[in-house]
Amino acid sequence: MKKFMNRAETLVAESLAGLVSAHERLVTFGADGKFVRRRSLRPGKVSLISGGGAGHEPMHVGFVGRGMLDAACTGHVFTSPTPDQIVAAIRETDRGEGCLLIVKNYDGDVMNFEMAAELVAAEHRIATVVVRDDVDPGGSKRSQGRRGVAGTVVMEKLLGAAAEAGWRLDELSALGESLNGRIRTMGVSLRGVTVPDTERETFVLPEDEMEIGVGIHGEPGRARVKFATADEIVETMLEAILGELASERDENLLMFINGYGGTPASELYLVYNSAKAQCERLGLTIARPLVGTYVTSLDMAGLSITVARLAERELSLWDAPVDTAALRWGG
Amino acid sequence: MKKFMNRAETLVAESLAGLVSAHERLVTFGADGKFVRRRSLRPGKVSLISGGGAGHEPMHVGFVGRGMLDAACTGHVFTSPTPDQIVAAIRETDRGEGCLLIVKNYDGDVMNFEMAAELVAAEHRIATVVVRDDVDPGGSKRSQGRRGVAGTVVMEKLLGAAAEAGWRLDELSALGESLNGRIRTMGVSLRGVTVPDTERETFVLPEDEMEIGVGIHGEPGRARVKFATADEIVETMLEAILGELASERDENLLMFINGYGGTPASELYLVYNSAKAQCERLGLTIARPLVGTYVTSLDMAGLSITVARLAERELSLWDAPVDTAALRWGG
Repeated sequence: MKKFMNRAETLVAESLAGLVSAHERLVTFGADGKFVRRRSLRPGKVSLISGGGAGHEPMHVGFVGRGMLDAACTGHVFTSPTPDQIVAAIRETDRGEGCLLIVKNYDGDVMNFEMAAELVAAEHRIATVVVRDDVDPGGSKRSQGRRGVAGTVVMEKLLGAAAEAGWRLDELSALGESLNGRIRTMGVSLRGVTVPDTERETFVLPEDEMEIGVGIHGEPGRARVKFATADEIVETMLEAILGELASERDENLLMFINGYGGTPASELYLVYNSAKAQCERLGLTIARPLVGTYVTSLDMAGLSITVARLAERELSLWDAPVDTAALRWGG
Repeated sequence: MKKFMNRAETLVAESLAGLVSAHERLVTFGADGKFVRRRSLRPGKVSLISGGGAGHEPMHVGFVGRGMLDAACTGHVFTSPTPDQIVAAIRETDRGEGCLLIVKNYDGDVMNFEMAAELVAAEHRIATVVVRDDVDPGGSKRSQGRRGVAGTVVMEKLLGAAAEAGWRLDELSALGESLNGRIRTMGVSLRGVTVPDTERETFVLPEDEMEIGVGIHGEPGRARVKFATADEIVETMLEAILGELASERDENLLMFINGYGGTPASELYLVYNSAKAQCERLGLTIARPLVGTYVTSLDMAGLSITVARLAERELSLWDAPVDTAALRWGG
């Protein structure tokens, strides 16, 4: 797999430098370049910090800015950021109201964010939300139960808007826990990815097969099945997602079609069209859609579908202005 | 190549339906679903209409909205829209100030937009800007000289902002002509694309080669060469682009790194980082950057670099608010 890069050792730093430079109005590097933070930090609000391995861009660095994250810590490709990166982000962005750490449920991430929280426990109030939006992966090895995947965007947007509106640390933490039970995601891959360091493919799929329930590091999913039409693929995914959401009529559903990096917008919109129609046939209305490439797995061909059940006030949080590199709306 | 689709005959309609549905606040279908237009048309402004074959999404439909296009006509994959689509868009969106047609320089597009303009000449004032931003393609067959490629986004943004600011039809037309000499684009492809109808690949590249100067339909470029580092690729491309721009120090340069559909944001940002550094070494400063996937060639892996030399007032047009599915900033 050909990639636009110079050396594997520097590709994350070079890519981050490009992002920070292209969006210098919004973001800047934190101390020693250990993380990316908002250019202007607002006093009187809880600091929201997330992070994880590189290779999922624009998540999380693309979500740093007004109405979303205060800082994002990026590790090497598919590798957790180190505790000292997270500690540096906490120290630089906590304005006295504490920090909420938003962590995807992977062993390495959970461990390093926990370690960072312990290291600063004497000086900073810290709460952590571990995002677990993946449908039940069964016996997958790389996770401790449900993984944190594309639903992380929904979590970061809603918590970001709430923090901007002045919610306290304990209120944000409670919202995050509550959302964890109401956001579900399932992914499908048409092609494995090649990790730049190892030049090893995560998996190889025959031309007529796809991997259902795949994770965002290309880890295997529930089943490898014959490739099918978009309608059939969507039906399989929605069945799994809605089966875990216990969704009811007249609820506010958010639907998020997320590209994995190698799938163009035209296909994502086609899938949204199919998913919306299928929901309507089940009596479910989509209150808010999001379609785009936000949580990638390098250049993997594939996508995920996320559905979230939201309360009225959460729809307002979703609609609230956001101004980041990757997500932008409102005044 | 696996694609998320149901049937080749309906994939464009299904994808457009998804886009319109996901962005119903901004856009709606025009008469008989022949084109996509702004939900609210503003009286007192020239109507800007563009279009072209499908397969380049989010262009052009993703650029319909305040500060950019009034309507976009989409043909089948890599196929020009028909004159009756364009005529319908003119009739529905002209509010008395005339229509500016923005057309990429491909034979089919130029012919069909011309025919539409003739058909309505008695009732509507029409001007046409034919975008020709590609670096000199030499003897490429599918074009009449320089093709209209990713620089079309720059053209549509600047003309869209000017139209919103009340510029008259002749003023917009003159701006478009002037910009044509100051926008240059070059593309590179790492992998050909498969057209859904024919299931035929446009070209096949060996694992260690790339196609330089490629068009957005996967048409061959200037040369097929060994794959190289990002820095080397950027150097080759910038040399060709800047060689045609006669760019000078202290000018306002806009740089646009565009993904072709199968290349993730992390690589585009890395390329921007390299291109910016190389420009700075030449004494050139980037006044405005744009990095993202805006003009695709289905799911082609690859990217293009566009550089535009802009006057001060054109920077203001670039910065003016825009609110479309794919491009959004300002208040």
